[in-house]
Amino acid sequence: MRAPQRELPIVTAEILERLRERRPRVHCITNAVAQTYTANMLLAAGAVPSMTTAPKEVRAFVARADALLVNLGTFDNERQKAALLAIAEARKAHVPWVLDPVFIDRSKPRTAFARSLMTKRPNALRLNRAEYEALAGGKSDRQALADFARKHRTVVGLTGETDLVHDGERQIAVANGHPLMARVTAMGCAGSALVAACLAVEPDPFAATAAALIAMGVAGEMAAQRARGPGSFAIEIVDAIYNLDRKTLTANARIR
Amino acid sequence: MRAPQRELPIVTAEILERLRERRPRVHCITNAVAQTYTANMLLAAGAVPSMTTAPKEVRAFVARADALLVNLGTFDNERQKAALLAIAEARKAHVPWVLDPVFIDRSKPRTAFARSLMTKRPNALRLNRAEYEALAGGKSDRQALADFARKHRTVVGLTGETDLVHDGERQIAVANGHPLMARVTAMGCAGSALVAACLAVEPDPFAATAAALIAMGVAGEMAAQRARGPGSFAIEIVDAIYNLDRKTLTANARIR
Amino acid sequence: MRAPQRELPIVTAEILERLRERRPRVHCITNAVAQTYTANMLLAAGAVPSMTTAPKEVRAFVARADALLVNLGTFDNERQKAALLAIAEARKAHVPWVLDPVFIDRSKPRTAFARSLMTKRPNALRLNRAEYEALAGGKSDRQALADFARKHRTVVGLTGETDLVHDGERQIAVANGHPLMARVTAMGCAGSALVAACLAVEPDPFAATAAALIAMGVAGEMAAQRARGPGSFAIEIVDAIYNLDRKTLTANARIR
Repeated sequence: MRAPQRELPIVTAEILERLRERRPRVHCITNAVAQTYTANMLLAAGAVPSMTTAPKEVRAFVARADALLVNLGTFDNERQKAALLAIAEARKAHVPWVLDPVFIDRSKPRTAFARSLMTKRPNALRLNRAEYEALAGGKSDRQALADFARKHRTVVGLTGETDLVHDGERQIAVANGHPLMARVTAMGCAGSALVAACLAVEPDPFAATAAALIAMGVAGEMAAQRARGPGSFAIEIVDAIYNLDRKTLTANARIR
Repeated sequence: MRAPQRELPIVTAEILERLRERRPRVHCITNAVAQTYTANMLLAAGAVPSMTTAPKEVRAFVARADALLVNLGTFDNERQKAALLAIAEARKAHVPWVLDPVFIDRSKPRTAFARSLMTKRPNALRLNRAEYEALAGGKSDRQALADFARKHRTVVGLTGETDLVHDGERQIAVANGHPLMARVTAMGCAGSALVAACLAVEPDPFAATAAALIAMGVAGEMAAQRARGPGSFAIEIVDAIYNLDRKTLTANARIR
Repeated sequence: MRAPQRELPIVTAEILERLRERRPRVHCITNAVAQTYTANMLLAAGAVPSMTTAPKEVRAFVARADALLVNLGTFDNERQKAALLAIAEARKAHVPWVLDPVFIDRSKPRTAFARSLMTKRPNALRLNRAEYEALAGGKSDRQALADFARKHRTVVGLTGETDLVHDGERQIAVANGHPLMARVTAMGCAGSALVAACLAVEPDPFAATAAALIAMGVAGEMAAQRARGPGSFAIEIVDAIYNLDRKTLTANARIR
């Protein structure tokens, strides 16, 4: 194992430190509701967002980016076209990319599109249980996750009350987080962007995906201590990501 | 009268409790500026937002939604098409819907479109005085409001310094609120979304509309006590909606 | 000199007071990521935003606006078309306008479009060093800035660690601001919108541009004193703009 579980909080701290030093650019093709919050979460973590979805310039933005996020939350023709161009460019330029198949469980054309994108080998996949089951066409138990990750040569980051990260061989469960995370729009989308940012500075996609989910979960718990509701929570978790350090991570990460 | 005025604070508290228990999904076709704040206000109130405006999937989202909001603030071709499809589906599936004719007083094509939507019988209408006068083509005194509500078989929620709610027979005035509410973009839009959420759990559209406006007004006053300006006010009112309870409502609602 | 440097903090305070009294409407054709934050910053300053980008109604919105902002951050066909219509209307109706050529250094079609807009004589230009160098096709030293401003009969507001304002004859440097301003998305875009708002109430475009950048810089320093990270900073600076007064400006502005 390249990233033993007991060391993951330290690995997470190191990845966050690299983000703050290197300031990688993460190009995001993401939905209209999530764009601003995603950009702010990336900036708080040390990364630099770019967000254009215009087909005529998306390749130029991706070619020089350090990672790519493709989020299907706004499913218009422009974004679908931009996603295909961006992914083609990312593969050509060896830019790692993450797929977030938002709400594919509610719309068959989205499911079909997400499945077609899986053939283009995302380095990581961040989604919830309902989205996973729509995408995989089956259950989300550990064996199924392992098979799916192996088949698609990807890392699955399945978020929920407990987050699971699987790359086909290695698996961890992250028990951090807070119910208020489900009361702020775009929180999952921002988490997927953080996976992309971590991929920009960490060659092991399993460690990168785990680090992003651990960071979000621990930051959520820090934020909940100060928040009085979902409005202040949304602000506090951005501050918490900005301030997250090794000591807080090792004291609070609950990884199995 | 099904909802006597002295009981409305309690009715409001009960509707908010039902929102938190049942977590209805509210589909919003709303403007680009308001999407994120609207989603966060709905989540704070206990509802679940969905926001797609893609014509190819909007019917599927509306068919299984518990309420629909149509907000005309972004007046592009896609959203107009989506609005028509969504409303047709809502009527077919008996999903209650709310119209928010944003800025129709500033643009004749919007006025014409809003008038055409009135023939599709929104369960409620949330708008300000200038928008009402553009839509109705006349004054906004009590008698005119009553006639308009009766003619269109809808509930009018007219917001301003004092909010008026009229269904053609019943009328109330809500004297709650705070000037900072006019200093945050999308506050009215978020209020309309809350009307839709209340319609999802309350069969009487007069009570639902009144409850949403009472909740916003009282939450605005709670928020203003903590805010230092419109930035913090926008956050505090989301927290206040999340925390609003029967005691605060009965102590603070000013209904005539 | 119409606006001697030692008086600029007072001129800034006076312009802010006029904004709060007159409440000018600023029409913004701006990018999807920046729309909400820009609207909230304008409202905090006392201005009233409108944001439509629909070609069929943009002329009607601009004709009666008090200032126009054209921001190229979202480079789609609709916004390009809307920008051209809006600028034509602004020139016809003598509405002052500001160009913010976001990210033109990263995309050749944006550079070409921004250059074509320069021929339509924006009253002011707000941009960073990389964007300026892409637009001007050369260096950003003081002499080059002066020549560029003179040639295009515009005011250049070049923001960075120190902001420079040049109109071809007069120049000032504003040393206010805080590093957290670069950690919040749309902060520069919101600053450009504030330039437009100031142009609506101040006939001297040099004073208007300087006032907006001084106000943002001082508000940023006030906000940083209270913020715990970029999340709370983004909120605090909106409150700071709302509360900014003559005393705070004269005590804190650092103008050379």
